[in-house]
Amino acid sequence: MNRYIYLDHAATTYVKEEVLAEMYPYLIEFFGNASSIYNLGNESKTAIENARAKIASSLNCQAEEIFFTSGGTESDNWAIKGVALANHSRGDHIITSAIEHPAVIHSCQFLEQNGFEVTYLPVNEYGMISIAQLKASIKKNTILISVMYANNEVGTIQPIQEIGQIAEEKNVYFHTDAVQAIGHIPIDIKDLNIDLLSLSAHKIYGPKGIGALFIKNRTNIDKIMHGGSQEKDKRAGTENVAGIVGFGKAIEIASKDMDKNNKVIKALRDRFVNLVSQKIPDVRINGHPTKRLPGNANISFELVNAKNLLSFLDERGIYVSSGSACSCASVRPSHVLLAMNLPQEVALSSLRFTFGNENTENDIDFVVDILSQAVKHMRKNCRV
Amino acid sequence: MNRYIYLDHAATTYVKEEVLAEMYPYLIEFFGNASSIYNLGNESKTAIENARAKIASSLNCQAEEIFFTSGGTESDNWAIKGVALANHSRGDHIITSAIEHPAVIHSCQFLEQNGFEVTYLPVNEYGMISIAQLKASIKKNTILISVMYANNEVGTIQPIQEIGQIAEEKNVYFHTDAVQAIGHIPIDIKDLNIDLLSLSAHKIYGPKGIGALFIKNRTNIDKIMHGGSQEKDKRAGTENVAGIVGFGKAIEIASKDMDKNNKVIKALRDRFVNLVSQKIPDVRINGHPTKRLPGNANISFELVNAKNLLSFLDERGIYVSSGSACSCASVRPSHVLLAMNLPQEVALSSLRFTFGNENTENDIDFVVDILSQAVKHMRKNCRV
Repeated sequence: MNRYIYLDHAATTYVKEEVLAEMYPYLIEFFGNASSIYNLGNESKTAIENARAKIASSLNCQAEEIFFTSGGTESDNWAIKGVALANHSRGDHIITSAIEHPAVIHSCQFLEQNGFEVTYLPVNEYGMISIAQLKASIKKNTILISVMYANNEVGTIQPIQEIGQIAEEKNVYFHTDAVQAIGHIPIDIKDLNIDLLSLSAHKIYGPKGIGALFIKNRTNIDKIMHGGSQEKDKRAGTENVAGIVGFGKAIEIASKDMDKNNKVIKALRDRFVNLVSQKIPDVRINGHPTKRLPGNANISFELVNAKNLLSFLDERGIYVSSGSACSCASVRPSHVLLAMNLPQEVALSSLRFTFGNENTENDIDFVVDILSQAVKHMRKNCRV
Repeated sequence: MNRYIYLDHAATTYVKEEVLAEMYPYLIEFFGNASSIYNLGNESKTAIENARAKIASSLNCQAEEIFFTSGGTESDNWAIKGVALANHSRGDHIITSAIEHPAVIHSCQFLEQNGFEVTYLPVNEYGMISIAQLKASIKKNTILISVMYANNEVGTIQPIQEIGQIAEEKNVYFHTDAVQAIGHIPIDIKDLNIDLLSLSAHKIYGPKGIGALFIKNRTNIDKIMHGGSQEKDKRAGTENVAGIVGFGKAIEIASKDMDKNNKVIKALRDRFVNLVSQKIPDVRINGHPTKRLPGNANISFELVNAKNLLSFLDERGIYVSSGSACSCASVRPSHVLLAMNLPQEVALSSLRFTFGNENTENDIDFVVDILSQAVKHMRKNCRV
């Protein structure tokens, strides 16, 4: 693992050995279909319920409020389309933000094509929505607010508690995409008036292909995956037992080690941001200065093309990201940075660095040195 | 693995060691997000494309016609809803069969609630649809035929080639759920005029939580999973790289060993059916006598409650199924057996035995002995 320096933990993470060790028996030995009623099926069923309990415990919700999906994208699709379709008779207006993950934005656009109206709340220069604007946007026909917990590109943490209070007062469902937040910052569902919350395993050292949706009891939601009666007849499809077990273990470890990890990760991130600010002129640190994920730094390097910088780092075994992984093959500027009012050329000069606790201070110092050389070199060669 | 006798291979299978060995590096070492543009992401991307090529090769289609999903259920949902919604302006009539998997039937019911008309073709006593009835059902507004390749409960193989010809003549899309067929019987897409075909990994010694949909080039289909631009912008969600790699390896092995395995499995199944027929009076072998999956036997034991028989076997470490795993927690008689005109009480006396090549002749003989005892015992105690 030392051939490179991985600074893209928000895109995905490896599967921890302890996680894989728990998954392993459910691939080989206890492989039964959890919907089968014989003993081998019961082993799977029990393992799934243990994982469900671990996830519920980490969020402080009921286990019966956790439903497994194939990942954060399906969870977002389900929450938004499922609530919209089930509550269409009550209203057809949805409020979201301009900086949501594509899974939320494109689900909303799908609903717009099918007769719903969607308000995309703007954000300020720090990527923060305005509570006043949210309040002003709520109409009689509003049925759902979907605002992400923490942004995947710039790390800004939204005022989830206030949003939840407003949603409750106005009797509107509140969904939050917490894929970047769970396991990284404490989330206590009980405090937050959240009705639906999307989770994913592969951002917290669990496997890819497994996620979950928290659905508060008594939420009126349609299913979007039709078929067998799995997940209390709410989400069809043979249960991905090993994936579910891995997710449970990953969230258990992340919750247990959260404070300790965050101290390490925040220190690495702060060291990185401070060194970059000291050593590289004309940079801009994006996102909220304090209300932000501990492991995220999003930095614009004036007059530098981010794609070129990314390739330069890649060639030296340093893995970072321009925007989110889901859209980074595109050359369009990040919709998040544009929504924060960054000019297009500044948005196109921005990279995301996301840290994990296998990173070291030496890694950071090395990366800053390379970055510094690269930026100097590229600025020299660019048209001014 | 010798503590029990597993005769429920149609429900799910364990992950073969060779499959897990190929998956392992993509969980630990090459864990990059396939949508990332640096080297670690490229490792994932290459692995995905290799797996896609293996699946395409096994079906004799183009690699670009294979799209990964979270499993057979999602593939069925996507094929049916995606084609219906994309072609709504052309028509609103869908033809399927009465014996489809719940993922197909419930997707069709969802469409019925949303303005589509669905014809459920009946089947004969062998579980076979009638080509004449299919032809007669096609109307001007028919846009899609969805008929499964091979039935999951009784093993009957439908006349896929004839259905494909009719669909082509009438300019109607043809989807087939081939989850029980792939890896078990040869499928050559080129011969079959199939437009969409659902696949799953966990029925062929691959992992759970991964499937695929074959979509013939130029098929007009909407996406149902909105978000990032993965899978050529047709199916959003971070790619389940390890799952995809496992699926590719599993289908490669299944294709390579198909003839050899089928000889073994068919011999075991025939031995079982013959012994049951000889040793246990008043049984009925369900499904088509010749046009059937090599590893399936579905048997009704007159006057015996299948749930009780299943429990009796379970206590002795013999794992079989009543109907499909997806619905076997229910006490309702199988919709497949009812559609085949079995009386309700006969349907409720039926068990499915599905064989794999780790089963032995000794296993078969032992199971038939236990079955024989159990049936005798249960019939003695039941009201006649």
